[in-house]
Amino acid sequence: MTAVLPAIRDFEAAARDRLDPAHYDYFAGGAGDELTVRANEAAFARLALLPRVLRGAGSPRIGVTLLGSRAAMPVLVAPTAFHRLADPEGEKATARAAAAAETIMIVSMAATVAVEDVAAAAPGATLWFQLYVQPDMAFTEALVRRAEKAGCAALVVTVDSPARGRRDRDVRNGFDDLPAGMRCENLRCENLCDGGAGPVRPIVMSPVISWEHVDMLRRMTRLPIVLKGVTHPADARLALDHGVSALYVSNHGGRQLDTVPATVDLLPEIVAAVGGAVPVLMDGGIRRGTDVIKAMALGASAVAVGRPVIWGLAAGGECGVARVLGLLRDEVEHALTLCGLASTQDLEPGLVRRC
Amino acid sequence: MTAVLPAIRDFEAAARDRLDPAHYDYFAGGAGDELTVRANEAAFARLALLPRVLRGAGSPRIGVTLLGSRAAMPVLVAPTAFHRLADPEGEKATARAAAAAETIMIVSMAATVAVEDVAAAAPGATLWFQLYVQPDMAFTEALVRRAEKAGCAALVVTVDSPARGRRDRDVRNGFDDLPAGMRCENLRCENLCDGGAGPVRPIVMSPVISWEHVDMLRRMTRLPIVLKGVTHPADARLALDHGVSALYVSNHGGRQLDTVPATVDLLPEIVAAVGGAVPVLMDGGIRRGTDVIKAMALGASAVAVGRPVIWGLAAGGECGVARVLGLLRDEVEHALTLCGLASTQDLEPGLVRRC
Amino acid sequence: MTAVLPAIRDFEAAARDRLDPAHYDYFAGGAGDELTVRANEAAFARLALLPRVLRGAGSPRIGVTLLGSRAAMPVLVAPTAFHRLADPEGEKATARAAAAAETIMIVSMAATVAVEDVAAAAPGATLWFQLYVQPDMAFTEALVRRAEKAGCAALVVTVDSPARGRRDRDVRNGFDDLPAGMRCENLRCENLCDGGAGPVRPIVMSPVISWEHVDMLRRMTRLPIVLKGVTHPADARLALDHGVSALYVSNHGGRQLDTVPATVDLLPEIVAAVGGAVPVLMDGGIRRGTDVIKAMALGASAVAVGRPVIWGLAAGGECGVARVLGLLRDEVEHALTLCGLASTQDLEPGLVRRC
Amino acid sequence: MTAVLPAIRDFEAAARDRLDPAHYDYFAGGAGDELTVRANEAAFARLALLPRVLRGAGSPRIGVTLLGSRAAMPVLVAPTAFHRLADPEGEKATARAAAAAETIMIVSMAATVAVEDVAAAAPGATLWFQLYVQPDMAFTEALVRRAEKAGCAALVVTVDSPARGRRDRDVRNGFDDLPAGMRCENLRCENLCDGGAGPVRPIVMSPVISWEHVDMLRRMTRLPIVLKGVTHPADARLALDHGVSALYVSNHGGRQLDTVPATVDLLPEIVAAVGGAVPVLMDGGIRRGTDVIKAMALGASAVAVGRPVIWGLAAGGECGVARVLGLLRDEVEHALTLCGLASTQDLEPGLVRRC
Repeated sequence: MTAVLPAIRDFEAAARDRLDPAHYDYFAGGAGDELTVRANEAAFARLALLPRVLRGAGSPRIGVTLLGSRAAMPVLVAPTAFHRLADPEGEKATARAAAAAETIMIVSMAATVAVEDVAAAAPGATLWFQLYVQPDMAFTEALVRRAEKAGCAALVVTVDSPARGRRDRDVRNGFDDLPAGMRCENLRCENLCDGGAGPVRPIVMSPVISWEHVDMLRRMTRLPIVLKGVTHPADARLALDHGVSALYVSNHGGRQLDTVPATVDLLPEIVAAVGGAVPVLMDGGIRRGTDVIKAMALGASAVAVGRPVIWGLAAGGECGVARVLGLLRDEVEHALTLCGLASTQDLEPGLVRRC
Repeated sequence: MTAVLPAIRDFEAAARDRLDPAHYDYFAGGAGDELTVRANEAAFARLALLPRVLRGAGSPRIGVTLLGSRAAMPVLVAPTAFHRLADPEGEKATARAAAAAETIMIVSMAATVAVEDVAAAAPGATLWFQLYVQPDMAFTEALVRRAEKAGCAALVVTVDSPARGRRDRDVRNGFDDLPAGMRCENLRCENLCDGGAGPVRPIVMSPVISWEHVDMLRRMTRLPIVLKGVTHPADARLALDHGVSALYVSNHGGRQLDTVPATVDLLPEIVAAVGGAVPVLMDGGIRRGTDVIKAMALGASAVAVGRPVIWGLAAGGECGVARVLGLLRDEVEHALTLCGLASTQDLEPGLVRRC
Repeated sequence: MTAVLPAIRDFEAAARDRLDPAHYDYFAGGAGDELTVRANEAAFARLALLPRVLRGAGSPRIGVTLLGSRAAMPVLVAPTAFHRLADPEGEKATARAAAAAETIMIVSMAATVAVEDVAAAAPGATLWFQLYVQPDMAFTEALVRRAEKAGCAALVVTVDSPARGRRDRDVRNGFDDLPAGMRCENLRCENLCDGGAGPVRPIVMSPVISWEHVDMLRRMTRLPIVLKGVTHPADARLALDHGVSALYVSNHGGRQLDTVPATVDLLPEIVAAVGGAVPVLMDGGIRRGTDVIKAMALGASAVAVGRPVIWGLAAGGECGVARVLGLLRDEVEHALTLCGLASTQDLEPGLVRRC
Repeated sequence: MTAVLPAIRDFEAAARDRLDPAHYDYFAGGAGDELTVRANEAAFARLALLPRVLRGAGSPRIGVTLLGSRAAMPVLVAPTAFHRLADPEGEKATARAAAAAETIMIVSMAATVAVEDVAAAAPGATLWFQLYVQPDMAFTEALVRRAEKAGCAALVVTVDSPARGRRDRDVRNGFDDLPAGMRCENLRCENLCDGGAGPVRPIVMSPVISWEHVDMLRRMTRLPIVLKGVTHPADARLALDHGVSALYVSNHGGRQLDTVPATVDLLPEIVAAVGGAVPVLMDGGIRRGTDVIKAMALGASAVAVGRPVIWGLAAGGECGVARVLGLLRDEVEHALTLCGLASTQDLEPGLVRRC
């Protein structure tokens, strides 16, 4: 991968060239008419920045500490499934690049490399583990123990998926299963019990999962729980009542319910509802450093990127992910500098104007 | 019809491939510059959904009862003319598919199969009959009696047509009559009197029709009367004064007066004017399960689909209609599940946000 | 001209096929980036109609009487220059078609047929005369007398032209003069004096023309004066102070100052400023019967069409103009009928909604 | 250059044909996704003009006096780098054209001709000098002295550049240095000291520059200081506190921080903050005479054009720039005339309406 790729969009183009079209569609596509997929990106273009001048701020500081985990940049690796579709090394390559960038990787429950192997491949990495609560709570607990043992520092519990998203591209492409030789390794039963290579359980997305399951999960582990997929302020308040450690505003990249608003448009209300009680993360449509500082100016403690990481991985493996993360880090620093700010701490809503 | 068609739009594409272009234009087109045709669909894209999470709602219930008629899903078959242009079996195929889907079919006065034959072809079907009041009230009464005898459970009286719509596509295509062998069988005179095959009367759309005709019609039958084509809240109130059993918000799919607002944008005011006194139905632009739940969240008791049924019929006959209705049913269930709701009863305006 | 042309836009396409491209551009184009040209049409698409139902209105009446002139339809022929570029018969053909349609033709000062010859060619026509006040008031008076003698029933004084519009298309095409054999016949000097065929004076568009000139003009003639080109409400009030008989809201079809708002968006404020004291006409972007009734619902007493008449003339000469006027008349009647109205008199602002 | 080019956009097209594509991209492109580049132009299209009629204003006066410098038109030459990329004569050609048009040229610190040579080549020209304050204040002072000696009448201090803009087009094109034989001549060291041809220092864009540097600069020279690149009203007030002589609203043509609002949208707040204390200039998106009068109606004392000058220079050297400036002068006069105004002094906010 020697080409000059100055922007995330260039990585997407490079990835498209290299990926099986059905796999590209799997990663790029979304639910329904993909209105939410497009809205996530488009919403940032409607937010303008009003920089300050002559502040003599020097080089900006962009590191953050989240739930005890330190990241050198406020851009995390969002949980996404099936990295081995993009690169043979899969989640191992992603984790090494995240470790090199000194940021947090949220390992997907639907990873194609087992979380222990991800951790082993990237010794310095800070890993969090993403979880769909399974109706079989014994199985859920086994997953939690496994994440704990692998050294994951937080649980990211996805709550926007009482059913699997309907994605027309996948139906058209007939993409409904991983190719031979790839599996959701975190769901392999023996792995969960004694390390052998046994059958893989399916991920259940169930409409019976409720706040009671969150309470059970909280009693089950001392890991901080990040609730991912909250879009309604009333649910943000409920989440605080149920003792979660952080909220993560997400519409699942537009892959679950179509026509949910763009996350950056949902963010201010969630931030207001949370009132600073816990950190608020978000993902959805982040493609530029200016997007990152807009989200943070509106109250996000940090953001996460999903598809950009996949495009880097498909375009150039570990090196591609490293370049994507490096590009975002450079753009964040640059945008802060041009806004006259010394630190992401100085971001505040007055910097952003709706246009 | 073996192709995978994941969305209503795919059925439209398949139908376009199979239909005579002039017939496709007849079904797809509308009045004037077709601004209302496009507005109906576009309006749904400007309405966002704000789902709730962790409600433990289980599988949703989506059945409705309307004026004593039960439907297993809140999506009815809207009245549309000339089904035999789309499939040799015409309205018989449509009725069989509606019966299989356990939903209500509103048979058009301009059907190419007589309503008795429609009923006979689909024994289990729940049929309602759509009527343009004819200035010759004796003829109108004959039509009403015929619908009653065929077992129709309600009369859907279209009131947005004091004149026939001007549709430029049809003028350009020279489409002004049915092909040889097809007729509006409900308008065949002998059928109305003694069952023979005599001349067919034209449908008169007259600007003299007034509320008095509605009163006469109400005295004429015990069938519930659904007033279709009301767009002004003042007319909704008048309709209640005149004792109608339900309102049906429609701009005739953009086929009568161009530049009427999208129906889903008209809906809230009509719902407010009706104040729960009678059910409010609507059609216009419904192409997704999310569209259905948006309309119902804004106060519709159920919706109807016109063109989607035609696309299914043209793409695959009875089987095609069945697949279109099944697709919509699945999408409605899925959208409710992703919104965290147990039933269409739980839909309320707070779920929807204008974006 | 035997083709079926169901809409004004079809006439434009036909005209484009027949006209010299530079002449097409002259008629179709406008000032600057042509934002106002496009805005005039686009503004109507943002105005929605909210029809009433079951009014039993019967066939609508659409005739109007303006300043003592009767028209069978509320659509006048706006003043446009150079009709002989579109058809050899030029303004004579237009006048005959206007007479047949029983509407008013506003003959342009820049006509390529002298106003007397226009009048002679169309005996039954109701003609008004459009005038740019010339700084040489003696010459202006000669023009007024000429219009009076030709039987014109009103003077339409254009006030939006203190300088000629800058139209890039004409510059690019090198179109700056009429072809050999065509002249602005109303400006031919001998005609003004003794009927001979002498030199033609140029039309002067001067920034020295002021309200004083309007006063002089008013003292000069008993013909009613219609002030054309007012866009600011303050000027509408001044016009009443100066005793004009009618106002004519126009941005010169986007041909003078670019980025002036669409006329239908300017109309309500002008109507409010005039307060019913005099009739308010308008032109700009009228392409459909629905456009006509929107403008009238917002307070216009009638509208005028410029380019549509030229497209008819180029597409089919007198017959083409007749078809364009007939199409608009039919569409106006049809739109009124579908709105449930008995007459253009019943149009009121509540029919229109901004969307 | 004999072609007829009626609009600035035609000059851009001609320039594109003649320029090395990488150089065209350098001039045309901007930061990030170039949203601000496009917003600058698009914002003018959303501002409508409401002309007045019959004012008898005669030919308009459009000259302005700014900080003691007289200009025959309210359109200045904005500072832009590297004119020799567009024409071998570079800034000398631009200055001669500006002198002929009797307007002010702001010579860029990054000019490819030394400011003394620019002045010598265009004896009658009024020159201002654009400056990035360099952290090495001795070097900054040397630059100021040089500008003073060359006869520049004001310093335009750019404050929106604490770092160099990131422009993806340049990265893609590998454009990161001037071709052999071209240099930023104002940065040549010996020139600064004794006139010899020595090494060229790089332009430093530093985040340590602050209001203190502005204070130092003000103590360093008696030239009026124009602060360029202010977009926030709070910074406009600070600038007054620090004694600047004028403000210059600019987002650097969209070349520094992407998603800053269009300058014409920022202008009213800056004008309000300044309250008439000093003149307010602006650049960004000016392509028409109507754009100029909109900006001035909203409070700008004059405007500047950057890319249009480059397009003229590339299309036709000195003659091309002269034609671009002449075109804008003609369009400004014409727009004022059509608005019924006698002078740019008469422009006021009521002329402009947001649409």
